Amino acid sequence: MAVYTEVSDEDLNAFASAYDFGEIVSCKGIAEGVENSNYMLQTEKGPFILTLYERRVNPAELPFFLNLMEHLARSGVQCPVPLKGKDGEALRMLCGRPAAIVSFLKGMWPRRITAEHCAGLGVAHAQLHHAGMSFDMQRANSLSLNGWRELFARTDPQAAENIEAGLGALITRELDALAKAWPAPSADLPAGVIHADLFPDNVFFLDGKCSGLIDFYFACNDLLAYDIAICLNAWCFEPNGDFNITKANRLLSSYQSVRPLTPAERKIFPVLARGAAMRFLLTRLYDWINTPPGAMVKPKDPREYLHKLNFHRGVTDMAAYGLA
Amino acid sequence: MAVYTEVSDEDLNAFASAYDFGEIVSCKGIAEGVENSNYMLQTEKGPFILTLYERRVNPAELPFFLNLMEHLARSGVQCPVPLKGKDGEALRMLCGRPAAIVSFLKGMWPRRITAEHCAGLGVAHAQLHHAGMSFDMQRANSLSLNGWRELFARTDPQAAENIEAGLGALITRELDALAKAWPAPSADLPAGVIHADLFPDNVFFLDGKCSGLIDFYFACNDLLAYDIAICLNAWCFEPNGDFNITKANRLLSSYQSVRPLTPAERKIFPVLARGAAMRFLLTRLYDWINTPPGAMVKPKDPREYLHKLNFHRGVTDMAAYGLA
Repeated sequence: MAVYTEVSDEDLNAFASAYDFGEIVSCKGIAEGVENSNYMLQTEKGPFILTLYERRVNPAELPFFLNLMEHLARSGVQCPVPLKGKDGEALRMLCGRPAAIVSFLKGMWPRRITAEHCAGLGVAHAQLHHAGMSFDMQRANSLSLNGWRELFARTDPQAAENIEAGLGALITRELDALAKAWPAPSADLPAGVIHADLFPDNVFFLDGKCSGLIDFYFACNDLLAYDIAICLNAWCFEPNGDFNITKANRLLSSYQSVRPLTPAERKIFPVLARGAAMRFLLTRLYDWINTPPGAMVKPKDPREYLHKLNFHRGVTDMAAYGLA
Repeated sequence: MAVYTEVSDEDLNAFASAYDFGEIVSCKGIAEGVENSNYMLQTEKGPFILTLYERRVNPAELPFFLNLMEHLARSGVQCPVPLKGKDGEALRMLCGRPAAIVSFLKGMWPRRITAEHCAGLGVAHAQLHHAGMSFDMQRANSLSLNGWRELFARTDPQAAENIEAGLGALITRELDALAKAWPAPSADLPAGVIHADLFPDNVFFLDGKCSGLIDFYFACNDLLAYDIAICLNAWCFEPNGDFNITKANRLLSSYQSVRPLTPAERKIFPVLARGAAMRFLLTRLYDWINTPPGAMVKPKDPREYLHKLNFHRGVTDMAAYGLA
C-alpha cells in the first residue's frame, strides 16, 4: 500500500478548477498500488480516481498509457478513462508530479481466486488484446529478455545467494536457456498491446463477473501469449505453491473462446511461461534486496516466482496447463 | 497510513447484507488512520466508511464511541453517524474483528494549517463540548496522570536516553510536578465528554469552513479545557517548532465565542497544556521505541512534544497564548 505524496486542499482545488466536475468534496489516499499515489475523489459529479505519477514512471511515456486507456474504453473494454480538463488535456502537474484523473470503476479485486474468476479474466483479457490491435502508439517492453539481463547485472549476487543458495547461478543458466529458446522477432506469433501486469489486484469483479481492468502503467507491445503466461503465473498457483490446473484450464479456454491460440503460440507457451516467471523473479529479487527497511511498501518474496519458474521448466506441452 | 485487514468480497457481501444500502460496488482501503482499518465504500445509496477495529481498541468500549457519535450527530455536531443494520445494530463482526459502517463526511483535513482553520476548529470544538453535556454514558480517560505514569514505567529508560540525553529524568521530574499542580477531581472546572485526539487529520474543512470532526476512539470524560490544550499543541505550533500566537488567539477566542472559559480554567490552562504535551510525548516515546522496523505505520518523533512541553513550562498566564 502506498501514498507517497500529501496533496493539500489548496493544491487540489487549484488542480480541480481545470475540470468540469464541480467541487471536490473529499479526497482520500487509497491504500493500494505500489508505483504511484492514488486518491479517491468524491465530486459533485460522482467519484473519480486521481493518480500522481511517482518517480518510477517515465513522464514521457504517460501519453502512451493515457491514450491507450482512452482507446480501450472506446473499444468497449471496461477500464478507467482519463478525464480531460476544460483545456482538452488529461495530463497536468500536481505537487510537482504529473497527474491525471480517471473515471471510477465499479468492483473489487478478488482476494480468494476461484476458477470462475479465472474464466472471467480470460474473456476480458482476450477482449483487451483484440481492442489493442487498433491502437496506433507503440511502447517497447523494457522488461523482456534484454531488460532481464540488465536488471540482473544490477542485482547484488551475494544478496541473492543469501536469499537462496545457488539462486544467482540458476538465474544465469536460465537466462542463457531463455535467450536460446525465446522466439525471434520474426517468429509468426500474434503480437500487440499487452497489459504486462494483470495480477488479481488489477482486475475488478462485481457479482462474480469481471467488471474491469486497471493499472495500465506497464502496458507495452509484445507477444500476446506472453501476457497470458503472466496471468497464468499470477492467477493459477495456490498460496501454497500448488499449480491449479482447473483454474489454468478455465483461464486459457475462456481466453480462447474469444481468440483461439495459434499452433505456434501453443508450442512456445511453456517457454513464455518460464520467461514470465523470470521477469517477476528478477524484479521481486531486485526490490527485495534494494527496498530499505521501513519503506512504505513491503517487497514480495522472490522465491514465489523461483518456484513457478521451476514448475514451467518441467513442462513440455499445453496439457500441463489443462489444455488437451 | 494503515490498512491491517484484507476484506474479501465474499466476507464483505455477507456483512453488507445486514444493511439496507443496496449493493456495495466498491471497497477501497484508506491510507489514513493509525489504530484501525478504514475503507471507503461506494454503495447504491452513496459513499460510506467501513471501520474494522484492530487490536488497540477495546471492544467493550465500542458502544461508548458509537453511541457518542450518534448522540453528537443528533445534537447537530457534524460527525460520522453509525449506520444501523436491518437488525437495529450498528456493531457487528467482520473478518474476526468488530466492525461498523458510518456515514461519509464531506471535506478534507488541512495539510497547511492557517489561523482561519484554527478559528473554525475553535467553534466546532466548543459545540462538541456543549453537545457532549447531554450524553449519558461515561468513559474514564485512561491516558491522564495515572495512565502517564504507567506508560512511562513500561518505557525502556535506556532507549529514551538514546533519543535525548536526560529525557527520562526530565519526564520523571515533570510527572511529579504535574501530579502536584494537576487540578483535584473536586476542583470547580467544567468537565464532560472530550474528543482527546483532535489533531488536524481528524478535522475536515470544505470551502474554508469546518465540515466535521472524525475519529472519536479516544473520547472520554475529562476536563474540557484539557481537550482545548490538546488542540493548542496540535494546531498552534509551526513545523519548525515556533509557537504561533495568532493561531492560538483565533482558536481560543473562537472557542470562547460559544463557551467562554471560566476564570479557574484560564488559571489552570498552562498546567493542562503541559499535561497535554506530556500525554503525547509519552505515547510517541513509547511507540517510537516499540514500533518494529518495517511496521506499516511510521512512529512520530516524540521530541516534537518534548519541545512543546518545555514551551508550556515557561508560561504563567493566558497572555502567552494570545488571550488578554
